[in-house]
Amino acid sequence: MEDKRITMIHGAGGIAMNHLIKNHILKYFSIKNHEVSLNELEDAGITEGIVFTTDSYTVKPLFFPGGDIGTMSISGTVNDLAVMGAEPLALSCSMILEEGFLINDLDRIMKSIYDTCRKANVDIITGDTKVLEKKSLDKLIINTSGIGRKNRYLDENLKVVKKYRTNFNSDWLLDSNIGKGDKIILSGTLGDHGIAIMSARQEYGFESDVISDVSPLNEMITKALSVGGIASIKDPTRGGLANLLNEWSEKSNIGLAIEENQIPIKENVKSVLGFLGLNFLEIGNEGKVCFAVVSEKAEDVLAAIKETHEGRDASIIGEAVSDFDFPILETIIGGRRRIPKPSGDPIPRIC
Amino acid sequence: MEDKRITMIHGAGGIAMNHLIKNHILKYFSIKNHEVSLNELEDAGITEGIVFTTDSYTVKPLFFPGGDIGTMSISGTVNDLAVMGAEPLALSCSMILEEGFLINDLDRIMKSIYDTCRKANVDIITGDTKVLEKKSLDKLIINTSGIGRKNRYLDENLKVVKKYRTNFNSDWLLDSNIGKGDKIILSGTLGDHGIAIMSARQEYGFESDVISDVSPLNEMITKALSVGGIASIKDPTRGGLANLLNEWSEKSNIGLAIEENQIPIKENVKSVLGFLGLNFLEIGNEGKVCFAVVSEKAEDVLAAIKETHEGRDASIIGEAVSDFDFPILETIIGGRRRIPKPSGDPIPRIC
Repeated sequence: MEDKRITMIHGAGGIAMNHLIKNHILKYFSIKNHEVSLNELEDAGITEGIVFTTDSYTVKPLFFPGGDIGTMSISGTVNDLAVMGAEPLALSCSMILEEGFLINDLDRIMKSIYDTCRKANVDIITGDTKVLEKKSLDKLIINTSGIGRKNRYLDENLKVVKKYRTNFNSDWLLDSNIGKGDKIILSGTLGDHGIAIMSARQEYGFESDVISDVSPLNEMITKALSVGGIASIKDPTRGGLANLLNEWSEKSNIGLAIEENQIPIKENVKSVLGFLGLNFLEIGNEGKVCFAVVSEKAEDVLAAIKETHEGRDASIIGEAVSDFDFPILETIIGGRRRIPKPSGDPIPRIC
Repeated sequence: MEDKRITMIHGAGGIAMNHLIKNHILKYFSIKNHEVSLNELEDAGITEGIVFTTDSYTVKPLFFPGGDIGTMSISGTVNDLAVMGAEPLALSCSMILEEGFLINDLDRIMKSIYDTCRKANVDIITGDTKVLEKKSLDKLIINTSGIGRKNRYLDENLKVVKKYRTNFNSDWLLDSNIGKGDKIILSGTLGDHGIAIMSARQEYGFESDVISDVSPLNEMITKALSVGGIASIKDPTRGGLANLLNEWSEKSNIGLAIEENQIPIKENVKSVLGFLGLNFLEIGNEGKVCFAVVSEKAEDVLAAIKETHEGRDASIIGEAVSDFDFPILETIIGGRRRIPKPSGDPIPRIC
């Protein structure tokens, strides 16, 4: 007991991380008098109608095809608000810099932060800057926290859910909201961000033309909510789609039947994954979300998502079923197999 | 130009840090449509009545006499809300851990976080955990962000200010609020935290019995606000009292005449400062704030502060004057000297 230590796998979004959070963090925080509390392990907490989220970005390398740590930090935090059903109200930005960091690189990253804020239509209103001695930190960490208010279409959207599901009574888009028959929509191709990061890192010994899809998705999500019938939204970041589906199954106590041949994935991503022997279900993503939508509205929501640039490759990849209470994959070669909760993302520090 | 780099002094709360923030961060953020925007460089931003602040805590060592990084992260963020005139509504907590970090140490820190949250009467409602490879980080960084609402006594308190100062029209406790004649109250002894950290670090070659005063001050501040007449509150953290006074002078365009013999300081702190040749005005503090109060209410506010445990050593240390527009010190030995803006805190990573 005396010398148990943190390992990389504690940060990789899987079983070990879940154990760490439950046994060493949440045990001190059993407070439940908020609309959404810490112990619900959602993408954000909610109190007095204010949605509040935080993320520290440690991605390496800082610059990669399609973006950089600045693009990521703003997009990720905006998306964490959006998937709860909120529109961003303001962001904070805390930079922790290593002594010796190039000021030109800082300028590039600040420019990305600014551009991404404009794209997401949100301002940073508070910040902090710290500098650590050389070797106390590897270059740069950015923490971005965000606050948001209920999306203007959320109430109307949930009314549509209630119309088709009489026992539904949630005021937000929670992981526990999924009901039998809900269709699962994935907003685009899997794996782009994870592979872009790996290729930029070089240590994996391959080159590719895959570009990260990191982007704020609040506009796409707002368009989808304006259609109505969305019960839950979640992003397949650390631990990938496998982790997302397991969390949905657990918290909604429902099975999820996913069809492999409906999952959009680029050919160049697929070939790198094959080359490295990585499971496409476990690779971390940015710039993609899953929607759980009442079946009656699924095609309309899909159409609205596909009209957006970020959602052009969206696809219905499966549905919620009551025959079992975990996610399964109906494979292309035939047969079904359970999708296990990953022990951790195969590539840490993609975010 | 090509290879300008970040140095330690960029993080130490003085002139260089100010230059970095203004020229490489704020130049991307000239947005002003909030009650308090980033470019005002206050302790928090404010939008739609929500006060929002962020801080990353990098203090070393993690454990020190009187507290640890957990106590500090909660206290610091609660205090950043409180000095704006807000009561805390919720906090976020993002932990970045080095691989190999002792889980027992994590438990100790989480316990401190919990205890400090209870003391400040606030909950953490959202969080994040990241793990970095060994040597990519020195042990642990915690980012705590916080949201707050207007303190229940703030409006009434500002009405009292307006009664005595006809041209006063601020809705919050801003750095720019100070007017001629305002008395400056320091809530307690200077330097305790900085010296406790230095003594725990050992590298400075001395031992002492000084204990950090790190603590949430929202209760003390609420009691002071209930008296009325407070124009501004600010904490003398990085860059110490010298930095605080210079920021107040600059933003309020006013002189501050401080009497050295009124500044509370413990004998053991004074002797360590003398031993190390450090300026007591520039040493960073936690657990202390300065109040600027209309002179008519200064004694009443002082009395209310002194009734609290955290404010028991409070003292009126000077006043705002219009003869000049910078802070000066009337020294014990006689004579007055200008208090310059420090180039940086003499001990970085006290917070």
